[in-house]
Amino acid sequence: MANINDNYLKLAGSYLFRETARRRAAFIEAHPEADVISLGIGDVTLPLPQACIQAMHKAVDEMASADTFRGYGPEQGYSFLVDKIIENNYKGLGIESDEVFVSDGAKSDCGNIQEIFSTDNTIAITDPVYPVYLDTNVMAGRTGTLQPDGRYQGVTYLACNAENNFCPELPEKPVDLIYLCCPNNPTGTTLTREQLKKWVDYALEHDSIILFDAAYNAYITEEDVPRTIFEIPEAKNCAIEFRSFSKTAGFTGTRCGYIVLPKTVTGKAADGSRQALNPLWNRRHTTKFNGTAYIIQRGAEAIFTPEGKTQVKEMIGYYMENARIIREGLTAAGVTAFGGINAPYIWLKTPDSMPSWDFFDKLLNDVHIVGTPGAGFGPCGEGYFRLTSFGNREKTIEAVDRIKNSLKF
Amino acid sequence: MANINDNYLKLAGSYLFRETARRRAAFIEAHPEADVISLGIGDVTLPLPQACIQAMHKAVDEMASADTFRGYGPEQGYSFLVDKIIENNYKGLGIESDEVFVSDGAKSDCGNIQEIFSTDNTIAITDPVYPVYLDTNVMAGRTGTLQPDGRYQGVTYLACNAENNFCPELPEKPVDLIYLCCPNNPTGTTLTREQLKKWVDYALEHDSIILFDAAYNAYITEEDVPRTIFEIPEAKNCAIEFRSFSKTAGFTGTRCGYIVLPKTVTGKAADGSRQALNPLWNRRHTTKFNGTAYIIQRGAEAIFTPEGKTQVKEMIGYYMENARIIREGLTAAGVTAFGGINAPYIWLKTPDSMPSWDFFDKLLNDVHIVGTPGAGFGPCGEGYFRLTSFGNREKTIEAVDRIKNSLKF
Repeated sequence: MANINDNYLKLAGSYLFRETARRRAAFIEAHPEADVISLGIGDVTLPLPQACIQAMHKAVDEMASADTFRGYGPEQGYSFLVDKIIENNYKGLGIESDEVFVSDGAKSDCGNIQEIFSTDNTIAITDPVYPVYLDTNVMAGRTGTLQPDGRYQGVTYLACNAENNFCPELPEKPVDLIYLCCPNNPTGTTLTREQLKKWVDYALEHDSIILFDAAYNAYITEEDVPRTIFEIPEAKNCAIEFRSFSKTAGFTGTRCGYIVLPKTVTGKAADGSRQALNPLWNRRHTTKFNGTAYIIQRGAEAIFTPEGKTQVKEMIGYYMENARIIREGLTAAGVTAFGGINAPYIWLKTPDSMPSWDFFDKLLNDVHIVGTPGAGFGPCGEGYFRLTSFGNREKTIEAVDRIKNSLKF
Repeated sequence: MANINDNYLKLAGSYLFRETARRRAAFIEAHPEADVISLGIGDVTLPLPQACIQAMHKAVDEMASADTFRGYGPEQGYSFLVDKIIENNYKGLGIESDEVFVSDGAKSDCGNIQEIFSTDNTIAITDPVYPVYLDTNVMAGRTGTLQPDGRYQGVTYLACNAENNFCPELPEKPVDLIYLCCPNNPTGTTLTREQLKKWVDYALEHDSIILFDAAYNAYITEEDVPRTIFEIPEAKNCAIEFRSFSKTAGFTGTRCGYIVLPKTVTGKAADGSRQALNPLWNRRHTTKFNGTAYIIQRGAEAIFTPEGKTQVKEMIGYYMENARIIREGLTAAGVTAFGGINAPYIWLKTPDSMPSWDFFDKLLNDVHIVGTPGAGFGPCGEGYFRLTSFGNREKTIEAVDRIKNSLKF
């Protein structure tokens, strides 16, 4: 008799963006004349860099001729891409080519990585958090059931809020796997090199592994924010880094990312031996994945050409100027806002601690702007609200003007 | 303390193609003048159909303009592709659009599907077999350790050999999850509609699930071989089908496939309730995967245009003519050969029951041809050998001539 994986039944409904879309649609139906601006979903809007477009056209043409056709490639990614990644993003950090695994994106990698760990490991996540870290652990059976307070039994939640300046405190009870996202989605805040080093030291002391999501690292502007966790040398013994081209170069619909897993990172086997995680991940990656499309990898490679770099810089600059406009506009309107300096997200404190969903409705009803309620990202997101800077400039300015001029608190 | 998933340590080395490559390289080094022909790896060699090339160029151009740019798409695949799949491959079978899940290929799907089942389910695989079914279950902990006979404890192996005409017998002890691949990799053989119906009846009787890998279905030529398991109406209560564009249209390096999972297929939950598997897979697919690249989905869609269909037919025809040449040539040389009629694989019985690896060496040394030893696909593959029809026509003819004229048994 086929039994299902019962852990799936523990999952809370993934209703956040469905619910925001539903409320938006209902509002538009009732007010067809309203010009609704969305600063809600974290998806890019600018086209791909020209360098990527050209590279993909060339790659498509290669697939049209038997001489240049590519069939199965290495599951870990073509060396033309892996080498560029190391040269451009990990120069001088001693990362080797068999420590980089190209994939179809950070969501897959963040979701799949837990498979190489024992199901009895404990996990720590920040709160609020990108839901994939938690949900994939629920599915794997590393948690108990969902409690009335919105938290899963057995999970360590690391509160991140204005009180601790969005820098999570080290856990009281030891944890095995620690998910950190920096720059952070949804709060748009970052850890400094010094703050991150504390986590690396903690992981080494407790034999924990840090799962470091750096999907937004291209948005970092401040000097003391690490571009990669491997800037902290000891991290090569305890960290796995996740990177993505989605937000770096507009690849949300083009799908490419990668993991960096140094061969020096180990875990403990049941027989007490130390086992390097790199060969375990290599086995997982080559058994359950067949490589990212050749055409897409050529597109990703083009990001590292001189033209590609210039075009990516312009794209990031555009979104970050939006972020500045939102952040400064909110501040001018008397709203307390975080993020938006090293990340494309602005995390605002709702006026008078208004519940997130009430603020969602107020923003939609009063000034026709759609954002994302902080409570959707975890209990500690209650009383906060996320706006994204991925929109069009004019609309972003218009949205901020509406908040400044018409939103009555 | 981070513990690893100890099940990974049970895995046998995945050395098959590494070992054939090593022996090939050693031979070439010793005999640099030899013209070695490879009929070994199951990878396509013909370029992509022109219809796909044109569609992907168009899609790349769409990504270059903000008006037509595509960010995140539905994880389950764009309706433009899902609708064509149903219309062309499942017409009249009542498959609905939310029962199709587009992915980056059948390897991922075949590897990931087991996650929605309980780890205490038992599995049955044919022997010989595509290694992904087994390895992913070993990794998930559904097996014991590897035994000296090359089999994992707790797994039901369904022998497929010349004696039973490659039609596996129903298992003696009930099993929960049954992997069937038809047309079969590596044997190139098929089940008739009547034979497959026995398995569907078995699954319904024992409340088992059939995981039906139809990645090679485009190669079927005979009338009584089902194109999809859903031709057997009762299968909609017990089967999940895997499809791929890899062998259908040369997508091995372009990456697109899909699962068909009817909403009527259910499994049992711990509380005794029946749970539909479709929403469980939907949750898995949307949580651990972010959709196939837009450009690739447009390429896949083009297979279903009139030009695409013609081009795919020509491509398959080319490979199947190679298959005919190999099969008939082998038979003329006195070799017993199977497959090659509904599949691009020819599975031959080694002369005088020579061990597979010895035959590999003999073929390489005597006539400079590389194939794949049957033993690499499972204990029951011993004494068999796989040749593929994915090569170039001239080389294929030359290889067969060498076997006919120069191979001394």
